[in-house]
Amino acid sequence: MTPETSRTDGGLPDLNHIHDSLIEIAYKAGEIIMGALPTTDGIGSKKNSTHKPERPKTYDPGHPLTTAPTFVIDPIDGTINFVHGFPHACVSLGFAVDRVPVVGVVYNPFDNTLYSAIRGQGAFLNRSVKLPLKGTDLEPLQGLQNSLIGVEWGSDRKGRNWETKVRTLEKLGQAKDEGGAMVRSMRSMGSAALNLCAVAAGTLDLYWEGGCWAWDVCAGWVILTEAGGIMVDGNPGGWQAVIDGRVYLAVRASPSQIGQRELVEEFWANIQGKLEY
Amino acid sequence: MTPETSRTDGGLPDLNHIHDSLIEIAYKAGEIIMGALPTTDGIGSKKNSTHKPERPKTYDPGHPLTTAPTFVIDPIDGTINFVHGFPHACVSLGFAVDRVPVVGVVYNPFDNTLYSAIRGQGAFLNRSVKLPLKGTDLEPLQGLQNSLIGVEWGSDRKGRNWETKVRTLEKLGQAKDEGGAMVRSMRSMGSAALNLCAVAAGTLDLYWEGGCWAWDVCAGWVILTEAGGIMVDGNPGGWQAVIDGRVYLAVRASPSQIGQRELVEEFWANIQGKLEY
Repeated sequence: MTPETSRTDGGLPDLNHIHDSLIEIAYKAGEIIMGALPTTDGIGSKKNSTHKPERPKTYDPGHPLTTAPTFVIDPIDGTINFVHGFPHACVSLGFAVDRVPVVGVVYNPFDNTLYSAIRGQGAFLNRSVKLPLKGTDLEPLQGLQNSLIGVEWGSDRKGRNWETKVRTLEKLGQAKDEGGAMVRSMRSMGSAALNLCAVAAGTLDLYWEGGCWAWDVCAGWVILTEAGGIMVDGNPGGWQAVIDGRVYLAVRASPSQIGQRELVEEFWANIQGKLEY
Repeated sequence: MTPETSRTDGGLPDLNHIHDSLIEIAYKAGEIIMGALPTTDGIGSKKNSTHKPERPKTYDPGHPLTTAPTFVIDPIDGTINFVHGFPHACVSLGFAVDRVPVVGVVYNPFDNTLYSAIRGQGAFLNRSVKLPLKGTDLEPLQGLQNSLIGVEWGSDRKGRNWETKVRTLEKLGQAKDEGGAMVRSMRSMGSAALNLCAVAAGTLDLYWEGGCWAWDVCAGWVILTEAGGIMVDGNPGGWQAVIDGRVYLAVRASPSQIGQRELVEEFWANIQGKLEY
């Protein structure tokens, strides 16, 4: 979907109000999405999928994200899934201040799951279940060999970034005695926002991404970090990811942060080449 | 999970009765699975996941599947997902006669979805919605470039099969002008049975697998074929897949079978090497 970025006026934002409004919008958008699922009339109904709620301004890719309070929104994340009816697509509604994501709402209308968070107030599934799902019973992170990770093939299918991804995925999967990381397994669900929510929930241990945009990650980012996860650079060395940096590495919470930085470093060491977006 | 294969006596099986019994078992097993989700007590509760319902005989891998009516059952398909709480695991209950899958029940207790089919009687979601989901509005298949496909990395991480998989995935994803198939995208959910059900539903166009077992595919196979899909060999040339052949290629239904065999042939042409299980 064409993403949208728009700005509020300069007033101090009420994050709780924004959060509740975004949830309302997410549910409405979800209804539209499910109503627009490609069915009988082929191209005609697919066109319906471009209906978007709350679109105050058209996104201008030449306009960088400033420090102003800004909505960073993707009406449908997981567009390919949506078109195919593969039930992993969502509305991703984020709000950033000073280029830091502070409110996030991600809603998957296929299975009616809502993830939401306000900075400093925790992250929740369906507004009631605190994330990560296992809470204080969460196991410590124990390296890639014990990790279930999310990766995506993306849409760039040649050139340096494609090569970096393919070689890295091979290295991640490969047996230890062949020089690989022997990750437990890799999942590809096709939605950056839902991948981040899975890491927030603790059902994925890690998610690596290169090539997506601020609107793909802004909402999920708040949910992840409020669930105790961390978001670092998808290339080695950057311990603080940049909202519009387009390369990200998310790692789930761990009791007393055990193994969290180690998992990042182990992952970085397995990247073959460099992502350049 | 340790899979189970057992035989009925020699009597003529009542497929409708078997179907209804398997559904009952699937729901009960689902309760056990959700109750055994790894939580507080770590290893202790994981051990609970080996409780299995309805286990008349212990599986004997040296005992080949005969033509006798046989239950071909996996109490948990998607074990890694189950252990991590990633919500794509299922009970997979199949019944084969003359080595042909004739009854299939697949139940995902995480999202409470039930897929079931009896040979000759159609395939259904939650016993009421006929598969494929789009019914007569299903779009014709239009080659890999327009296909969303399911693939898995599997547990063999070196040697010829690993090489074949990695090279094939690369080829599938790669841009056309670099000699690749430029498939629309690839998904990995980590459950063979649920992948087959997704192809049956039409939300995935194709699913390729090498290395899984009869109990991983028996139930999904009936659901797939009753939904108009086809199951062929995962290596080039075999238009009739063998239940315990361990290499499979599933393609969804298409109006008047348009593009179905062509998609199989296009896929086979992109396989790099040969799967040998």
